[in-house]
Amino acid sequence: MATSNPSELIAMLRGSESPRAPSLLVTVFGDLVQGEGARIGAPVLGQILELIGVRPDSMRVALHRLRKDGWIASERAGRSSEYYLTEFGRAESMDATPRIYASSPPAESAWLVVFDPAQSNAQTEDGVSLSGSVKITGSPPDGDIAFATCLEPDIALPDWMRRKVCEPEVAEMSKDLAGRLIGLQRNLRPGLNRLEAAALRVLIVHSWRRIVLKTPLLPDHVFPVSWQGPACRAAIADLLSRLPKPELRDLAKIAAT
Amino acid sequence: MATSNPSELIAMLRGSESPRAPSLLVTVFGDLVQGEGARIGAPVLGQILELIGVRPDSMRVALHRLRKDGWIASERAGRSSEYYLTEFGRAESMDATPRIYASSPPAESAWLVVFDPAQSNAQTEDGVSLSGSVKITGSPPDGDIAFATCLEPDIALPDWMRRKVCEPEVAEMSKDLAGRLIGLQRNLRPGLNRLEAAALRVLIVHSWRRIVLKTPLLPDHVFPVSWQGPACRAAIADLLSRLPKPELRDLAKIAAT
Repeated sequence: MATSNPSELIAMLRGSESPRAPSLLVTVFGDLVQGEGARIGAPVLGQILELIGVRPDSMRVALHRLRKDGWIASERAGRSSEYYLTEFGRAESMDATPRIYASSPPAESAWLVVFDPAQSNAQTEDGVSLSGSVKITGSPPDGDIAFATCLEPDIALPDWMRRKVCEPEVAEMSKDLAGRLIGLQRNLRPGLNRLEAAALRVLIVHSWRRIVLKTPLLPDHVFPVSWQGPACRAAIADLLSRLPKPELRDLAKIAAT
Repeated sequence: MATSNPSELIAMLRGSESPRAPSLLVTVFGDLVQGEGARIGAPVLGQILELIGVRPDSMRVALHRLRKDGWIASERAGRSSEYYLTEFGRAESMDATPRIYASSPPAESAWLVVFDPAQSNAQTEDGVSLSGSVKITGSPPDGDIAFATCLEPDIALPDWMRRKVCEPEVAEMSKDLAGRLIGLQRNLRPGLNRLEAAALRVLIVHSWRRIVLKTPLLPDHVFPVSWQGPACRAAIADLLSRLPKPELRDLAKIAAT
């Protein structure tokens, strides 16, 4: 498909299923409304979500739920409402931001660590458990109680180990997303209005966020072979530079016209 | 202690405790009477064991027990008896011989192997288990189901791992024996009669056999740091070349005089 029509670009990226509204809103607030004091009006939110394919009633229910969860708050502003992240929602968003927007993997090296099975309290918190006494971690453990060996990028890791690092479904999602992002890179042309660009940007961040937050802080070479995280990161870095974060007041102006 | 008196050399090697008679007899038969058709007379046996410090009644009880276990058999020869290994006893002795007399470690490399904990039947028989899904083996496993990494000689292995490879008590025994063997190397002079030389030789083999058969088929560098297997092997190779295996008929002649 070769198109530069915004709704077709969004459909190409999204696939047949619309994203779940509460999760998508978390992405919108994290991407566009994370700055201190930032607020987004209901009309802008409505138009971005509509462009992505979320119906107004789904958005209303989702906003209600996020308010109830203490993630966002709202205030009347004339005949409409303005929404913003609570302190809690903002802290959570800031926490996830480095992982979502990172252009490089979250760890450079991986270590296979074997702990004394008789000393389960000697185990570290980080990494992925392979069994009761074996982990893969992003850094070697302190001290000399555990055995640790560096898993070099060219190492032969059995499939069952890779599947414990990252679920095969998540790896498949990354492969699917990488294909869509590359298609988008090829078809994206200048000329989108700012709301369309914002919607596309949000959907790109959202699609990756759903994947990357399900993965551990480990380098790509210990993931399942189908994992396409590096391709996703590279495409996203390029696309987000072509779809820079808009000013909320510019979006409000367009939404009002 | 500087001595070349045979009974003092034997005492120096043996320490304060006499070896258990059945186990010592297994060594005597394995070392001196393993050849096809080989037989040893009761007087020779009695004199060797007496030199080592085993009393005649202990020897009689032990011979009875080994006969009952099917390890040895006996036949009247004039006014005395001759003893020999049964087919079973000989097979068992031959089985242990390469390990006891080896001048080099039983494996050149060690591998840390991590098996899929969900596939316990994929585990190999060899090596030492560290936990339900982790082993140290002397060779890498077949196929690509397990993860394996070579444990190089300079690798840092935690103490608890080394203790699973070889019990600390066994490692301490090797350290104690190495000291005794080095003392023996220093004090041994030519001039022992053949029965005395045979008794000393048997006690050397026996002391090492009690240790080496409690250890796995793994290289020395994964053993506890107190392990002195290499020093024992080197001293034993030297001592056994200075105390070569005697002809049984020569021993019988001396015993009869």
